[in-house]
This record gives sequence, C-alpha cells and structure tokens, in this order.
Amino acid sequence: MKCKRCQDKAVIQLRQHNAAFCHPCFIGYFRRQVQRAIEQQKMFTRDDRVLIAVSGGKDSLALWEVLAELGYTAVGLHIDLGIGDYSSESSEITERFAHDRGLRLITVRLDRETESIPAVAQFTNRPACSACGTSKRYYFDRTAREHGFSVLATGHNLDDEASRLLGNIMHWQVEHLAKQHPVLAPTHDQFVRKVKPLYRISEYETAVYAFLQKLDYIVDECPNSKGATQLIYKEALNRIEAGMPGSKLNFLQEFLRSGQPHFRQEAVSPPNTCEICGMPAFGVTCSYCRLKREAAEKRTRHTGTTAKDRQTDIP
Amino acid sequence: MKCKRCQDKAVIQLRQHNAAFCHPCFIGYFRRQVQRAIEQQKMFTRDDRVLIAVSGGKDSLALWEVLAELGYTAVGLHIDLGIGDYSSESSEITERFAHDRGLRLITVRLDRETESIPAVAQFTNRPACSACGTSKRYYFDRTAREHGFSVLATGHNLDDEASRLLGNIMHWQVEHLAKQHPVLAPTHDQFVRKVKPLYRISEYETAVYAFLQKLDYIVDECPNSKGATQLIYKEALNRIEAGMPGSKLNFLQEFLRSGQPHFRQEAVSPPNTCEICGMPAFGVTCSYCRLKREAAEKRTRHTGTTAKDRQTDIP
Repeated sequence: MKCKRCQDKAVIQLRQHNAAFCHPCFIGYFRRQVQRAIEQQKMFTRDDRVLIAVSGGKDSLALWEVLAELGYTAVGLHIDLGIGDYSSESSEITERFAHDRGLRLITVRLDRETESIPAVAQFTNRPACSACGTSKRYYFDRTAREHGFSVLATGHNLDDEASRLLGNIMHWQVEHLAKQHPVLAPTHDQFVRKVKPLYRISEYETAVYAFLQKLDYIVDECPNSKGATQLIYKEALNRIEAGMPGSKLNFLQEFLRSGQPHFRQEAVSPPNTCEICGMPAFGVTCSYCRLKREAAEKRTRHTGTTAKDRQTDIP
Repeated sequence: MKCKRCQDKAVIQLRQHNAAFCHPCFIGYFRRQVQRAIEQQKMFTRDDRVLIAVSGGKDSLALWEVLAELGYTAVGLHIDLGIGDYSSESSEITERFAHDRGLRLITVRLDRETESIPAVAQFTNRPACSACGTSKRYYFDRTAREHGFSVLATGHNLDDEASRLLGNIMHWQVEHLAKQHPVLAPTHDQFVRKVKPLYRISEYETAVYAFLQKLDYIVDECPNSKGATQLIYKEALNRIEAGMPGSKLNFLQEFLRSGQPHFRQEAVSPPNTCEICGMPAFGVTCSYCRLKREAAEKRTRHTGTTAKDRQTDIP
C-alpha cells in the first residue's frame, strides 16, 4: 500500500476517502482537513482569539496541537470535573501538554466553583452527565467572556456529530435538528461562537494522529459514560460504516446540505438573561444557577454544611 | 414470566411493549395490532377487495392468514420470479398454503410474461434487485387493476420500514422521505392503493407468529439479497433496539408524526401514462416497458432467440 501523495510506504488507509498515507503526508492531510473546515465554515480567522475546550482526550489535544501548528491563537480551557482519578489524571495530562508546548491553559476547578460533578449528582439526584453538560456549557461561555475570547472550539469529531445526529433522528427531535451545526452563532451577548473544527474527521483518524504524534492523552472514557446511549449510536454507525465506507461523513454532510433546511422553521427563540448571574437563560434563571442552588440547598439538608465550609478545608 | 392478559405461563416476551403473552393471547395481540393498523391508517374496510402480495415468506403468509381470520376479502398474488430453487420452493409453499386454507391465489410467472429475473439481469446488466423491484411493482398494479382490486397489501414489517427509513435518512433522500408511509394513495388511475398492515409489527413478532401457528414458509432469503444494504441497516437498528427496546417503533412512529411533515413540499408530481402499456410512467414509457424492451433487444443480440422462441419450449 503506497501513500497517495508521495508514493512512499503508507502507514494508514482511509477507506472512506479511498486513500492511504505515509506518516508525514497523513499529518499534512489531517491539518489540511482542519484548516479547510475552519475556512469553509467561516469558524474563525488568525485575528480571532480562540478558546479551546481541552478534556485531556485525544480529540481536544490533537485539535489544540493542530491549531497551534497552523498559527492560530488558541488558549486551552480545562474544566476539572472532580470525577475522582479520571479527572485528576485528565488535569495532569492537560497541564503537562500545555507546559511542554508553551501553550497557555486556563483551568476551572468545579469543586472550588461550586461542587464536583459527583457531589452535584448526589445532592440533586440528577444524572451525572446532565449536571456535567450544564456545568461545562456554562463555564465555556463564562470563561470565554471573562477572558475576552469570541470563539470557543471543541474537539467533537465526525463520530460524535454523526452519532448525535442519529440520536436526534431516532427521536425526531426537530428543534435539535434545526440547531445541530459545526458553527453555532451566539444568540445572546454572553454567548460566544461555538465551533467544531474536527467535525469531518473520524475518531479513528484522530486516534491515528495521536498515535503518530505520540500524544500523551487520557485513554479511559469518563466512568459515567458506560452504557451511554451515544455509544450505542456510535456502534450502530460503525456497523454501517464497515459495510459502506464513507457513510458517516455522507450522512452528516448531506444532512447539513439537504436535510437541515427542512427544519429551519423549528429554531427556538433567543434566550433571556439570568437574573442571578447575567448569563443566557431559557427561563428566569439559567440552568446552571438552578443546578447550583439545588445542590447548595440539598447539601445543607444532607450534611448540615455549605460548599464554602468544605472549601476552607482544601489545603 | 406470566401472560400480561390472562396470567397464564407466557411463551414470548415483547420488551418494546414491556409485555409477555401466552400462545393464544399473543395470537390475539398480533391480530389486534393488524386490525388497529388497518383501521387507524384507514387502509381498507371489509367492503374492499384486497389483493395481497405473497412471497411465501413468514410476513406475507402471516398477514394473509390474519386478514382471512379477521374476515377481510384477501386474494393472494404470487409473482414467480424464476430465481432457481428459491422461486420454485416459494411458489410451491404459497400454493400449498392457499390450497390448505381454501384461499384464492393468482400466480404470475415472470418467465412466461417476459423473462425470469436472472435472465433480465443477465441481458440488461442491471442489478437483479433493481429488475426485480421494477417487475414486482408493475405486476402489483397491473394484476390488481385487471382483477378489479382497489387495494394491494404487502407484508412489510416494522424492521423493513424502519431500515428503509434509516437508509433514506443516511442519504437524506428527501423525496423518498416525503413519500414513505404505510398507506400510499394512488396518484394515477392505473395505480391501486398500497398498504402495509404489519408496519408496526417487528420481524421477531412475525417469526414468533409463524412458529406458534406452525406456518410452513420459505426460510431462505432470496440468494440475491446477500450483502444487501437493507440488511446492514437492519443490523444497525437491531444494535440500537437491543440497548433501547422500543427504539425502532418510536423511530418510525415519530417520523410519521413529527419528521415527515417537514418534507411534504418535496412530494413529486403525479406520473404520466406509458405510451406502450398504459400504466403509470415517470417518462414517456414506464420503467417496466423500458426494462422489457432492453431485455428483448439484448437477448436477441446475445442468443439470436426471442423470449417467445424460448417460451414455446416450455412443456
């Protein structure tokens, strides 16, 4: 098998593109794919300051490295979720990654801001993934606003986006179908633009990138993600992709081209402003402030302590 | 495990309905599901003469038996495709089924009408499944019209319909999404209404029905269906159903309720009339007449014989 570009020995075959690449040409291909997504979808330019959400997994680290290589101003934002060893390892890896490359990293520790995800989930009886999503979305916008970033980039890849689309379709959630896009324009002055520069790059490709570039990333999935429905949709799509390479990419791209226009009228009205924190809210208060208040009330009822009491114990 | 209706020992569990049934209560449940689909979707009444397309497989035989039990006038239409042992076995089974129950059966033999499917596929270089679909659709309408039926019922089950929907969505074929429905109203005076009374019943349920009722049906799939994309979509949906029982039914029902209205404007204009045979055509001649002409021309070129020459050899 020969590299499609230089005819050297190939190290990776991409069946969906009917192509094979050697190590350097694959890295070049990967960067071009990211560059093309950014330009074609008008995600940002080299004049923008981009905040990139970095979990410590292969996708977000690969994206950060590529954005830096391509000459973009990309500062990392790591949210330490406080999920035991998984979170401490993620934070360590992310900090080392930033340090080794001289990249700036902003870290938000949920257990210092409010509560760790396990504590919120325990006190509020909500599913951990729901509390986590609410908290992350909140700090993405808030941190970007506080530090003067106009764009927030995430490492969502093709598999993430295609499985999310499949989930939205299995339930025909037409409001979600109206919104799903690699670029989300802000609908409130406290929102920043959200972009997904890896949306056309498969999980397999980011794994190969991370392997070839010897990225040190957290391999374990979040312990709360076991049995997650997203994984079931990913498996179903993998079955289709195995039989018909290119299906995932075509599914997502054709949705954006031919499918989504049919759902445009479903777009929801812009959010209000949270009367507690001033961030966007789809009610009187934003979902993060509601979560925070509920956790604080229930903590006091359960333990007789406030989060502040506990925080003073932290050395 | 106890029967949901009579508390007797259950023989089948239906996870998607969170129910279990004994043998007689399952048969009753199955018949009610068919009856409900017919009534809710206004497929036909007991005054209609229904032609039912019978392949000899479990779905079409189960449907035929249930329609007869429910007191509908249901005459069978079997199309002998001429696909070797598969077709001869299918025809024998169908004829025996009709004979044993005193039901009327109309049989169309493609090798006497034009050519068997393998011959058409060979002469025209078209995929066998494409030639087969064109031929079956043609004889469904033509036979119904010739024998005075206003409705044609097929045995398509939930798995067929959900996998077809998934295929249409994977490619975002919006015209197909606009049309997919358990009831297709005729858009030409030579079309009859097409209905799918099993569209809410899973393949597993029809298999259980066939087993419990001791139906003698053809178990083998058509030899041309190996590796068919429809099977890949079925496997993908089975993966989702295993993780989240009820997903297939919800996917299809929510599509009809919430998804399809968004595609209505994509409906295609009604067909013309074929200048050769007078049946509906989406060009000057219908796709069956084009297929027939192409097969006849290529047969003469390949073998120097006409289909008529060959037919005179049939004893």
